[in-house]
Amino acid sequence: MNLRTPGPIPVPQEVAEAGAAPMINHRGPEFAAILARCEEGLKEVYRTSNDVAILTASGTGGMESAVVSHVSPGERVLVVTIGVFGERFVDLIRTFGGDPVHLAFEYGTGADPNAIDEALAANDDIRTVFVTHNETSTGATNPLEEIASVVKGRDRLLIVDAISSLSSIPVETDAWGLDVVVSGSQKGWMLPPGLAFVSVSERAWEVQEQCTTPRAYLDLRRARRSAGNGQTPWTPAVSLFYQLDRALALLREEGVEQVWARHRATAARVRAGVQDLGLELFAEESVRSDTVTSILPPDGLQADELRKIAREEYDTVFAGGQGSMGGKIFRFGHLGYTTDEDVSGALGAIEGALARLGHAVPARG
Amino acid sequence: MNLRTPGPIPVPQEVAEAGAAPMINHRGPEFAAILARCEEGLKEVYRTSNDVAILTASGTGGMESAVVSHVSPGERVLVVTIGVFGERFVDLIRTFGGDPVHLAFEYGTGADPNAIDEALAANDDIRTVFVTHNETSTGATNPLEEIASVVKGRDRLLIVDAISSLSSIPVETDAWGLDVVVSGSQKGWMLPPGLAFVSVSERAWEVQEQCTTPRAYLDLRRARRSAGNGQTPWTPAVSLFYQLDRALALLREEGVEQVWARHRATAARVRAGVQDLGLELFAEESVRSDTVTSILPPDGLQADELRKIAREEYDTVFAGGQGSMGGKIFRFGHLGYTTDEDVSGALGAIEGALARLGHAVPARG
Repeated sequence: MNLRTPGPIPVPQEVAEAGAAPMINHRGPEFAAILARCEEGLKEVYRTSNDVAILTASGTGGMESAVVSHVSPGERVLVVTIGVFGERFVDLIRTFGGDPVHLAFEYGTGADPNAIDEALAANDDIRTVFVTHNETSTGATNPLEEIASVVKGRDRLLIVDAISSLSSIPVETDAWGLDVVVSGSQKGWMLPPGLAFVSVSERAWEVQEQCTTPRAYLDLRRARRSAGNGQTPWTPAVSLFYQLDRALALLREEGVEQVWARHRATAARVRAGVQDLGLELFAEESVRSDTVTSILPPDGLQADELRKIAREEYDTVFAGGQGSMGGKIFRFGHLGYTTDEDVSGALGAIEGALARLGHAVPARG
Repeated sequence: MNLRTPGPIPVPQEVAEAGAAPMINHRGPEFAAILARCEEGLKEVYRTSNDVAILTASGTGGMESAVVSHVSPGERVLVVTIGVFGERFVDLIRTFGGDPVHLAFEYGTGADPNAIDEALAANDDIRTVFVTHNETSTGATNPLEEIASVVKGRDRLLIVDAISSLSSIPVETDAWGLDVVVSGSQKGWMLPPGLAFVSVSERAWEVQEQCTTPRAYLDLRRARRSAGNGQTPWTPAVSLFYQLDRALALLREEGVEQVWARHRATAARVRAGVQDLGLELFAEESVRSDTVTSILPPDGLQADELRKIAREEYDTVFAGGQGSMGGKIFRFGHLGYTTDEDVSGALGAIEGALARLGHAVPARG
């Protein structure tokens, strides 16, 4: 199967097999060594000297840990959204009793840093800003460096969902002053799902000490305390740690900047190929993501019809639209372990599906 | 390595390898089929027709889901404890604003059903009872059927931590009227850690509708709604689902009652072997667990000295004591995929370590 969802993604064979190694005691020295290597590797990819907690949970668990650790009941926070995953922050904050001021930008666009600056100027009481870096639901990447500059200029805490960007798209945690950065294993990290990563700045640790929202399983402070003893607070997903250890070695061997360059090149090939097929991209040109491309079907065609044929006839799996985008777009993931053959095969699947659905494909130049 | 902790435990090779299969779309039909098979297999082992939710989390995440789903802020609940994991329920309930009435029995003993009955008679306002089935920290198994009979006789909701018992020791979820039963993948299920299972009775679903404690990632209602569509609410740990699918097939092939009988026989062999070495067992005879045996070192010897030699010289890993039991006992796990050779090897490691530490081992009859 050519799995072209924006996570889970194919896992390199050596990473897949690393997970089959014999189990060990998660309270013993072997696990402590793996945990230490994973933390060191994560810090390198995160470009940070902050602590990076590793949670046995999916990315949403990581997002929830960021919410319950930094937003006290009744507290107003700014949430900048450009799609479904930004809205998930809004929902989580509301669920746990926070008061989100929701600054929403149109799907397919990026956030405007000036508008964020104005919102912060108008809301002196807001201490914390939540933002999605790469919006997996629309295929748009926010101008995170500019957003961070504005938020830091206003001296607020910045919490970033970098689940589908980190390790694939440039993120400079320390240089940009990102206080809390969440990611998830099934993205550019080249692992199966099941681990979430959360980096925490000194300033964010201080906020956590004041935060009154109850938390236990997803309490980042407990993760930090246990990490000091080479452990996790609760039994970790040991096989996924084995895989993380291996995948981080691959990423570091290639070099973080080279990994970014590879994603840039792959994404450019995908976008050009899709446009050569006469299809339009959903996201605005200036914000198109290097990890996932959202594609509009031709007029009169349902995106899910095309996905169905790609799946059944070409063994190629694209993701559908989420929320209000359901049926309107399909999404082509090209993050992590994606080869040129994967890209060519997936473009061929789209071409074939279009032809079967009676949509002429323009002659290629 | 002979891993003799009470979880993680060794994973059968075919289960380990099942996790290395290619990734799939967790929103597609392949995953829906796996999820359905896993739910069906779990119900068979749980002996229930209740829903069984599968969470991407460790066992403690499953315990937290049971707490935040059934205990509203300020609500008094009864928590019956016989060790560290029962106390974890107390801590979780306090953390999330509940008011636990703590009925504690001595470490190494089981709970007295009559005392539970009296506590319930004296506390008409208490709707819900929490109890540990098998206390991993002491190696004691509670008389769950009798406890359930008392709790159901008083018409209360019963929430059970069966993390280290279910699939290894008899649990009759429906016949005994257990409302909520939590388990974890790294125990008798023969998987790596990373999945928690939670069965929920109709009555418990009704309580969840009334429960006002905020919850999202661990919200069992969301798991139920998504399961209706062949999905999980958040990205699941796909590779662990592959392994669960395979391990459940093994358990069902052997037969649940045969699996229980195997654990009974293995545990008897462990207990006899340890006593033949002149060592005393920590738990009272009537409650000794069929999944983990807690062992007192000879007078004048620290349990952790013995563990260190077993690890370094015999490549055999036992677990230490937890909490106030630290250094006082060591724990020998014999759940899940444990062979006769594993047991003999581990007994030999204890014997060798004792000899190296200058403790004469009695001649075996």
